Amino acid sequence: MLSYRTDLAMEAFDGQGKGTLPGVEVNRWEAGGVFLTEVLITDAEAERLLGKPVGRYLTLECGLLRRRLPEARAAMESLLAEELGRMLPDRKPDACALVVGLGNRGITPDALGPAVVDRTLVTRHLSDQLRLVPGLRPVSAIAPGVMGVTGMETMDVVERLAGLVKPAAVICVDSLAARDAARVGTTLQLTDTGIQPGAGVGNHRRALTRESVGAPVIAIGMPTVIHAATLARNAFDWLNRQNGEADEAALDDMERALLNADCGDMIVTPREIDALIQDAVALIANALNRALQPEVSEEDLEALMG
Amino acid sequence: MLSYRTDLAMEAFDGQGKGTLPGVEVNRWEAGGVFLTEVLITDAEAERLLGKPVGRYLTLECGLLRRRLPEARAAMESLLAEELGRMLPDRKPDACALVVGLGNRGITPDALGPAVVDRTLVTRHLSDQLRLVPGLRPVSAIAPGVMGVTGMETMDVVERLAGLVKPAAVICVDSLAARDAARVGTTLQLTDTGIQPGAGVGNHRRALTRESVGAPVIAIGMPTVIHAATLARNAFDWLNRQNGEADEAALDDMERALLNADCGDMIVTPREIDALIQDAVALIANALNRALQPEVSEEDLEALMG
Amino acid sequence: MLSYRTDLAMEAFDGQGKGTLPGVEVNRWEAGGVFLTEVLITDAEAERLLGKPVGRYLTLECGLLRRRLPEARAAMESLLAEELGRMLPDRKPDACALVVGLGNRGITPDALGPAVVDRTLVTRHLSDQLRLVPGLRPVSAIAPGVMGVTGMETMDVVERLAGLVKPAAVICVDSLAARDAARVGTTLQLTDTGIQPGAGVGNHRRALTRESVGAPVIAIGMPTVIHAATLARNAFDWLNRQNGEADEAALDDMERALLNADCGDMIVTPREIDALIQDAVALIANALNRALQPEVSEEDLEALMG
Amino acid sequence: MLSYRTDLAMEAFDGQGKGTLPGVEVNRWEAGGVFLTEVLITDAEAERLLGKPVGRYLTLECGLLRRRLPEARAAMESLLAEELGRMLPDRKPDACALVVGLGNRGITPDALGPAVVDRTLVTRHLSDQLRLVPGLRPVSAIAPGVMGVTGMETMDVVERLAGLVKPAAVICVDSLAARDAARVGTTLQLTDTGIQPGAGVGNHRRALTRESVGAPVIAIGMPTVIHAATLARNAFDWLNRQNGEADEAALDDMERALLNADCGDMIVTPREIDALIQDAVALIANALNRALQPEVSEEDLEALMG
Repeated sequence: MLSYRTDLAMEAFDGQGKGTLPGVEVNRWEAGGVFLTEVLITDAEAERLLGKPVGRYLTLECGLLRRRLPEARAAMESLLAEELGRMLPDRKPDACALVVGLGNRGITPDALGPAVVDRTLVTRHLSDQLRLVPGLRPVSAIAPGVMGVTGMETMDVVERLAGLVKPAAVICVDSLAARDAARVGTTLQLTDTGIQPGAGVGNHRRALTRESVGAPVIAIGMPTVIHAATLARNAFDWLNRQNGEADEAALDDMERALLNADCGDMIVTPREIDALIQDAVALIANALNRALQPEVSEEDLEALMG
Repeated sequence: MLSYRTDLAMEAFDGQGKGTLPGVEVNRWEAGGVFLTEVLITDAEAERLLGKPVGRYLTLECGLLRRRLPEARAAMESLLAEELGRMLPDRKPDACALVVGLGNRGITPDALGPAVVDRTLVTRHLSDQLRLVPGLRPVSAIAPGVMGVTGMETMDVVERLAGLVKPAAVICVDSLAARDAARVGTTLQLTDTGIQPGAGVGNHRRALTRESVGAPVIAIGMPTVIHAATLARNAFDWLNRQNGEADEAALDDMERALLNADCGDMIVTPREIDALIQDAVALIANALNRALQPEVSEEDLEALMG
Repeated sequence: MLSYRTDLAMEAFDGQGKGTLPGVEVNRWEAGGVFLTEVLITDAEAERLLGKPVGRYLTLECGLLRRRLPEARAAMESLLAEELGRMLPDRKPDACALVVGLGNRGITPDALGPAVVDRTLVTRHLSDQLRLVPGLRPVSAIAPGVMGVTGMETMDVVERLAGLVKPAAVICVDSLAARDAARVGTTLQLTDTGIQPGAGVGNHRRALTRESVGAPVIAIGMPTVIHAATLARNAFDWLNRQNGEADEAALDDMERALLNADCGDMIVTPREIDALIQDAVALIANALNRALQPEVSEEDLEALMG
Repeated sequence: MLSYRTDLAMEAFDGQGKGTLPGVEVNRWEAGGVFLTEVLITDAEAERLLGKPVGRYLTLECGLLRRRLPEARAAMESLLAEELGRMLPDRKPDACALVVGLGNRGITPDALGPAVVDRTLVTRHLSDQLRLVPGLRPVSAIAPGVMGVTGMETMDVVERLAGLVKPAAVICVDSLAARDAARVGTTLQLTDTGIQPGAGVGNHRRALTRESVGAPVIAIGMPTVIHAATLARNAFDWLNRQNGEADEAALDDMERALLNADCGDMIVTPREIDALIQDAVALIANALNRALQPEVSEEDLEALMG
């Protein structure tokens, strides 16, 4: 059985090639043109097999996002706001939230998280003005930068800032890698399991969990790339389905031959990735602001965001 | 015989898998750690077979550019300046040059040409100051934008501006697609054949030639992407070498299966493509300025560029 | 009488300090929170006195834009679309328009025009798809860059491209300089007189007129700066109103003392100019697209723009 | 006596209009075309009068930076590296440094600090590779963003990260406001007194001092703006020198009249501020890297920075 690099629990499940797995519950439904898949990983054996920790993973897919259709964005945004709102542990207006944009601003497909932070409605510092808009929840946000840029483990930085802010919830936004090219720019994954080492385009080395920050850690991710190695493996797998089995060693040979392993990490993206990310940033930031400020009307939110 | 999408004449030749071809002369040498390959296409049959018009194609390769080593950049820059200088038809200081940055500023791997234009020493308008630095050649530059952004065929725009400027040479800078992942960010192609339809990441639809602009058209290109379809074909080809032949129809099936043809053009780039392009922009712009201003000292050039 | 550098006809008129002037008709009204001022310059004497050519200048002012209120933007956008639509000479769907973004992308307050071009719905190249959306008018757009960047007079470039496109109207978008700080980011000027030498932040040297391009030239401008010299003159003027008259020579002395004339052109902008320009770009581009495509519904326009 | 907003101790001293002040020692010299001014504030009375805390302020001025001359940059860079090296408390290679980029990435003249962080050689995470380049000092860097963007006091964030990194020195890089237009883009201030509330373009609200972070706090700043109110006050002052005294109330009237206080904070910058900041970022980052890594050769530094 070949393994494929994907940050989507749903693809990890589908990659097993079986309709069911012990310790995994999968539900699929559709709402307003968006396909939702809920993967519930419930025991340690399933965690090991899928390489994703126990928890709930919700995937929202809408292929029309790739064509940049406004109504597709609106449907996705509403669903994300709703599901994120349900995942937030405490909807009391005085419960503070800390939004963390993971990834590197200087690498186009990795800049999703920092760009969402730039459009998050930040309110924690508005002590005097809080009364102007009733029900405004205190929100902080930071894009700390990746370890290669700061010299610090990102998760250490977030833990220290959680110590400062004492959030009721931490919400991380990150770029992901998918296995299937059709999911890049069209799919969002929402999970309550925190951030795991090796997930995300930026390859975090430490986990960020409820235990490490003292509050639930929700992650919102969108696939922005496929690793080129995964594409090569997909090709290999497809051909094997036609020609019979081949072994892992042959696959490694092929990967080296095709990708020149010594020239670094190659990624596959749509040509229009800059525009797709710009769209996703607006979509996620709007949904985030709506979910974090359920007491504030859409009009007031829009005015507050400028 | 499968065909692979590449903008490099050298890869088109190597892709034929034969050491020699009638109508093609290939010379290879090394200078200061840079590998040079000259492909001379001399007749119509070779033109048809390789999909590249009759002319001279010079490839400069330096794998160390990928590691961002300053000495590799310096070696490449000097060689490019020298070879470009040789290709320029007229080194009289009063012969005007028009530099054209092809590609789309809004798409990271396609922004090479426009960014080089931003760093080109432009002098055509300096009528009064021309005398301050003796031997300064008049240079114009423009990045007109791709047809999807302007509504005009890029080549029509360039022809009109050539009509205005009456250049002694047009020098186009463009992002290219390679077949081999190792060439992205490490290779430059210099040619005197102009720009062909379908070349470049931006897929030009009309040619730009000596006939259409009334002056020699020199092109400088760097591969910034591999088309994902090419990577898939490479995988297929590799496997065929192991398993015996397969047919073109199977290949098309695989491509559709892997890349979801309806989700648009997927590209493969190194993760650090933003930084590689930034380096290439400086390298090409410096070489271009040196080649266009042979009478001006390096110190004066640096001071003029700010 | 002191003279102040302003690109707004309305400020040039107000700066004369008289309620009326021969050869000038001024009308003021209000609509949806936007203050409109129409200045009609009708003879050569008024043209000389105000430093603005004979023609119609319409100013739209809305101070709330500075507070980034969405309803202020919506009101301004609708009015601009409406007035621009009226100014367009020919609303037949097959009459082509050429949108020109003046200014320098690399200078924040001068990047308004190029950024509007990036968001203009460009359709001239869509020959086959034109039928998909009935009534879609052919539109081209270009941001040629300023002379210091291209080595070519911008107006020469536009004339050549008008020769290619044969537009029924040319619409120029430019950053302007105001005299009054309150107008930066809050005011739009719409005029049918073309572009004049010395107008705009980028200081064009040649005019662009109906005569030079063979089609009416409409200009849309927003003040993004005040020249620091103008601010100093304003200070001087204010003090004179308190203390009696001073002469022009003293003013020149002050300007030199304050601004160190040899350190280049100083400009005054709001701290939040990056965000104000971003807002203005969306506002102007939306209004432009609506005015140019009156047959296309808002929903279709939004979908076409992505 | 009017007060002018300036972040430069040297301008605060000069603004007093006296050659000497008790509690202040001023030394001026020249080196390689750079004018250096050292202001030593030695007692509380001088601290109150100048509005700058007790400490050493070193100003480096080079008017030629405005003309973007490479040799001016080289001279400034060497002097800054040298003086910064002297100010660092501990040159043992294992003493860690924390570089902090203050200011807002989204506001052009406030983006200096974050951009310097992007070009700082960060090494703290390179535990295994540290041995490859002997004497490499561990360096961390962060640009946390301003309070309006994060909801957190910047100084609280820096204190928490200092708790994580335990630096031997904190080095803050910030955009400053000057009084004199000639100093924008031409002057650097280096000080060992930390960051004070209200200093910098971004208007910090809390101090960052040796006491608050447990390590010396060195600040490097470059004026990128003049507050428009300061320019107006300069104008007023100049006129008073000609016409006799006026009072503070009249000045406030003028300021309101000229700047429309309700339309926010107006700033004065050179037109070419984007390019000046780009130059300053390279200059400061290079000097910082040289000062922090005295054991590493220039060639190795260049190679490490890519």
